[in-house]
Amino acid sequence: MARLVMKFGGTSVADVARIRAAAKHVKRERDAGNEVAVVVSAMAGVTNQLVAWAGEIGAWSYGAEADAAGRESDVVVATGEQVTCGLMALALQALGVKARSWLAWQIPIVSDDAPGKARIESIAAQDLLAAMANGEVPVVPGFQGVTRGGRLTTLGRGGSDTSAVALAATLAADRCDIYTDVEGVYTSDPRVVAKARKLDKITYEEMLEMASVGAKVLQTRSVELAMKQGVRLQVRSSFSDAPGTLVVDEDEIVEKALVSGVAYSRDEAKITLSRVADRPGVAAAVFGPLAEANVNVDMIVQNVSADGKTTDLTFTVVKADLDRAVAILEARRKDLGFAGLIQDRNVVKVSVIGVGMRSHAGVAQRMFQALAEKGINIQAITTSEIKVSVLIAEEYTELAVRALHSVYGLDAD
Amino acid sequence: MARLVMKFGGTSVADVARIRAAAKHVKRERDAGNEVAVVVSAMAGVTNQLVAWAGEIGAWSYGAEADAAGRESDVVVATGEQVTCGLMALALQALGVKARSWLAWQIPIVSDDAPGKARIESIAAQDLLAAMANGEVPVVPGFQGVTRGGRLTTLGRGGSDTSAVALAATLAADRCDIYTDVEGVYTSDPRVVAKARKLDKITYEEMLEMASVGAKVLQTRSVELAMKQGVRLQVRSSFSDAPGTLVVDEDEIVEKALVSGVAYSRDEAKITLSRVADRPGVAAAVFGPLAEANVNVDMIVQNVSADGKTTDLTFTVVKADLDRAVAILEARRKDLGFAGLIQDRNVVKVSVIGVGMRSHAGVAQRMFQALAEKGINIQAITTSEIKVSVLIAEEYTELAVRALHSVYGLDAD
Repeated sequence: MARLVMKFGGTSVADVARIRAAAKHVKRERDAGNEVAVVVSAMAGVTNQLVAWAGEIGAWSYGAEADAAGRESDVVVATGEQVTCGLMALALQALGVKARSWLAWQIPIVSDDAPGKARIESIAAQDLLAAMANGEVPVVPGFQGVTRGGRLTTLGRGGSDTSAVALAATLAADRCDIYTDVEGVYTSDPRVVAKARKLDKITYEEMLEMASVGAKVLQTRSVELAMKQGVRLQVRSSFSDAPGTLVVDEDEIVEKALVSGVAYSRDEAKITLSRVADRPGVAAAVFGPLAEANVNVDMIVQNVSADGKTTDLTFTVVKADLDRAVAILEARRKDLGFAGLIQDRNVVKVSVIGVGMRSHAGVAQRMFQALAEKGINIQAITTSEIKVSVLIAEEYTELAVRALHSVYGLDAD
Repeated sequence: MARLVMKFGGTSVADVARIRAAAKHVKRERDAGNEVAVVVSAMAGVTNQLVAWAGEIGAWSYGAEADAAGRESDVVVATGEQVTCGLMALALQALGVKARSWLAWQIPIVSDDAPGKARIESIAAQDLLAAMANGEVPVVPGFQGVTRGGRLTTLGRGGSDTSAVALAATLAADRCDIYTDVEGVYTSDPRVVAKARKLDKITYEEMLEMASVGAKVLQTRSVELAMKQGVRLQVRSSFSDAPGTLVVDEDEIVEKALVSGVAYSRDEAKITLSRVADRPGVAAAVFGPLAEANVNVDMIVQNVSADGKTTDLTFTVVKADLDRAVAILEARRKDLGFAGLIQDRNVVKVSVIGVGMRSHAGVAQRMFQALAEKGINIQAITTSEIKVSVLIAEEYTELAVRALHSVYGLDAD
């Protein structure tokens, strides 16, 4: 007998038929003798509709008014999960499984009071544990909390994964199963790499790196929390009974692959400042104003100065921030003293990820060589302990990803 | 300065534009220096969708399972008002009016624990009064409550009117304005009687009788509560700034009209049992089983026995119950000993209502005469202190209603 938290995402509860199908997964686990708590997202599309209505009416962007509006927006948006919560409890009851909904304020799931992006502070476990011990399945809405003052909050996009992990930690669950519309975590995007394989296991660190470079299976915060709290995660499909991918501590993985996955992200754009003065403080002068404006800078390459006086500075920002970043830099052209600014949206970041690289040299070298053999020019490189990322021209995306997938021995038989 | 409760029905908050328009009515009252609390229904159509989803999944009709399912259904359905509650607060804020949503559990609005048809037991006023004194408009979802055990409930169809009246009583409001999609209460259905007039005032009793015979402007329970608690009601349109109809105590109306309105209901069907044994206990034997099956019987006519042994018994039930009523009676044909059962769906109940009839004789007589002059046969008659109803063939509906409207001097100039 195990204690499980089962979380169903928006596509898994998109309509009445799918909610019934999801309830059958829960019944299967209950029939196997497990204690189960369920976390649900809003029906797919509902949150967007609610956010759109609230956004259409409330137009405050800062200050006390924005806070007041954000709180009301949360009241509106939180209803999405409340609906599925009640419907899931009904679906379980109809299958003969004892179940009831527990809304965030009923448990309570206490959060801080940042509207629209609250963080869970604590979850009271005793009522839920008592219910589970009594053979009942508590159904909990993801994505929401209640402040100490009794106002509803939402956790921000993807927050339902975080709710599920936090609940699993609170209940000391043996596992937190994230039911979604994919079969698990793959070695690469199956739409690009036909030979991509589903991984049986992956480490938290690898999952985090994959999430940060474009694999959108799990929300980053939820993985961080699972790693910190030691919650074993499983990503699996609500449309099949096949086991998915376990996200676990490195210790649980005996044979560590050198590279577990190849990911890519088309979200970034490249900016090059040419002939920037090569003196101390220049980097701070460039990136300070961007940071203040909440523009995240990812890859940074600074060449050695050729003439001893100026250098070229290349970096990437997310595409949505590109225009803003360019405007900020152009406004400071005089102070920064660069000769030219070149922007390029046609780039892709390709990454290889694997905890095995910690103990093996040559992983990056093999990557550069494979790309060179295909005639692909590398525009920028960044590395972390378990990841190597390169920036290349977007048109080479598929060619590069498939080549790397093959080079590191990830292709399915 | 007055204290007002303003309630907006489903058509008045059907979309973002209408919510904005409703918020302007609130701003007008605030600008006039009034303290205001707002009660909102769900956006038109939303409750039906939510009820349909819950009904599709939950299939329990009685017992503990039905209670558990009813509670979850309430969790689902209550979200409809929560959405408009947040959106209305946002719309008010956008107009510069201080506002916040107060959900049933936050106030709390305590109800009994009958799922889907709960009754309000108490409303805590202090937080709302403090907010209003502070210049803030509390926005409250209609139709819902919370049990002492902390579970959500809904009040049943039309419950938002009742919420508004109960809140007005709790806050000792000077008036409760019900904003809807009609201009007020009319002397008759304007779709049938072109000369129907909007009434400036009407008594609670008249409003109740009108509601009971088909005028669906206000929910009966809300009028009963307003009468009991002495809450002055106003029915008015959210699509105009014109004053509506005041529903008040008889004392507030100086010139009491003999007849205030002519209403009709096509909801009833007629059953005649021929040659029923004319002995004590027969009525109980006929109507007992119907009452047990929750079939409401309205008009009853029993003729004097012609032969001293048998009589004909005619009565009406709502059309939706007709088949069930007939089946119940046929199953007892032997015991009841009637010779024939005749059913007729093509009937209409036409009623004239007015507190003035209390002190004036001849109102009913004038009605019978007017119908006779048009050649309309009366099939059954019932009277109350302030109402006379007749059952006639449905094809005469318009003819009868217009004739009566004219006879009692209700026609607009």
